[in-house]
Amino acid sequence: MKIRIYYDDTDAGGIVYHANYLKFCERARSELFFSRGSSPAIDGGHFVVKHIVADFIASAKLGDMIEVRHEILKLGGASLELKQEIFRNDEKLFSITSTLVFVKDGKPSRFSPETAAIMKEIFSNN
Amino acid sequence: MKIRIYYDDTDAGGIVYHANYLKFCERARSELFFSRGSSPAIDGGHFVVKHIVADFIASAKLGDMIEVRHEILKLGGASLELKQEIFRNDEKLFSITSTLVFVKDGKPSRFSPETAAIMKEIFSNN
Amino acid sequence: MKIRIYYDDTDAGGIVYHANYLKFCERARSELFFSRGSSPAIDGGHFVVKHIVADFIASAKLGDMIEVRHEILKLGGASLELKQEIFRNDEKLFSITSTLVFVKDGKPSRFSPETAAIMKEIFSNN
Amino acid sequence: MKIRIYYDDTDAGGIVYHANYLKFCERARSELFFSRGSSPAIDGGHFVVKHIVADFIASAKLGDMIEVRHEILKLGGASLELKQEIFRNDEKLFSITSTLVFVKDGKPSRFSPETAAIMKEIFSNN
Repeated sequence: MKIRIYYDDTDAGGIVYHANYLKFCERARSELFFSRGSSPAIDGGHFVVKHIVADFIASAKLGDMIEVRHEILKLGGASLELKQEIFRNDEKLFSITSTLVFVKDGKPSRFSPETAAIMKEIFSNN
Repeated sequence: MKIRIYYDDTDAGGIVYHANYLKFCERARSELFFSRGSSPAIDGGHFVVKHIVADFIASAKLGDMIEVRHEILKLGGASLELKQEIFRNDEKLFSITSTLVFVKDGKPSRFSPETAAIMKEIFSNN
Repeated sequence: MKIRIYYDDTDAGGIVYHANYLKFCERARSELFFSRGSSPAIDGGHFVVKHIVADFIASAKLGDMIEVRHEILKLGGASLELKQEIFRNDEKLFSITSTLVFVKDGKPSRFSPETAAIMKEIFSNN
Repeated sequence: MKIRIYYDDTDAGGIVYHANYLKFCERARSELFFSRGSSPAIDGGHFVVKHIVADFIASAKLGDMIEVRHEILKLGGASLELKQEIFRNDEKLFSITSTLVFVKDGKPSRFSPETAAIMKEIFSNN
């Protein structure tokens, strides 16, 4: 997924505000659902980020076109471990590993068979 | 209400991103409720901005302490017309007139007597 | 310009946070420059919003695909008056008229002949 | 440092958007400087986040008053390792360990003696 850097993504340091790389990665995850006519708010539940480890390698700036790539590390019955990297052309800017849990009525909840099938489709053929 | 300008409020132009002045004004409106132990999400409904006229006079920058002041122009049974100005010390930076409508189940809705009383208390003694 | 609504564009009311419509309009203005290999930070200066009048007609929600359309009202030597409207399919959600001034070294400044030519190209053939 | 949760901090899930906890932690770091009449943009340089490990434990919602606490793990000559936790009353919501590097002219740079003194004052007496 390609994302353009606009003014609201940057800060007074002249580069992208650090927390926004997480936002770009979330948008890319959501777009995997939206582009299939589905939604990350699915099956009466939604995904919650539980744990992240991230490296900020280089900075994007106003007007840059960046790309978010992903690789599934583990797909469980109610959770997901995902690696995402942000590139500007061939230069890696950011890398994050996220553990996401599917939550329904405030509690971790197993995917329904339908959702499990969508998850498999989305996160197996990168 | 006083608000500090942080990195995430600014953009690569080195000053506050223009849309954030609206955010500061909304925070100031909400704080009028929160500081009384109430909420702008009240009575099963919430406020929706319908119309604004705004002037951007001067810019705030990182670390500035700004102040949002308000003056009620008109308090109706289901709506509110409000003038808000943002100052840095004695310098006016921003001015906005907003028409807000109270919405419940997606439709404009009159305040309950309890909410009307809170509205009167909040928006009559500035 | 088409824009997808992601989680970070929405708020606890379940719809797009009102100030974000201004953000979408700014992104659309900037994209007019970026898509030509140019930038709104041009010629040692940049554009500053001075005055807006806006109507919030209906709300966009998570996953919606919206479109920002524009119509130039007036193109001056150092300023711009622009009407922008946001649609979801055929439904108008938002309308704004903005007065933008080109600023250099903190002062309004006439476009250079090169910038004036770009401005004319961008804002005359919609 | 205490922070109120406003509409723009939340998303359509009804709770604080996950990336905003990083924003709150950055604001708290910056406020340590601002409240002393200093700035995190100091000495011709500024701080850049290089590496984070974070746990999202529970969620804050509209109107909550949260508190960011910090503990210095390591103060180097050009970097900083910091643990920050966000609480709502006695409930821990979020925990992050950040490695920050001081950057000048795009390169890691040792603190000047004056900045080193400020850093020591800010980050030794929690």
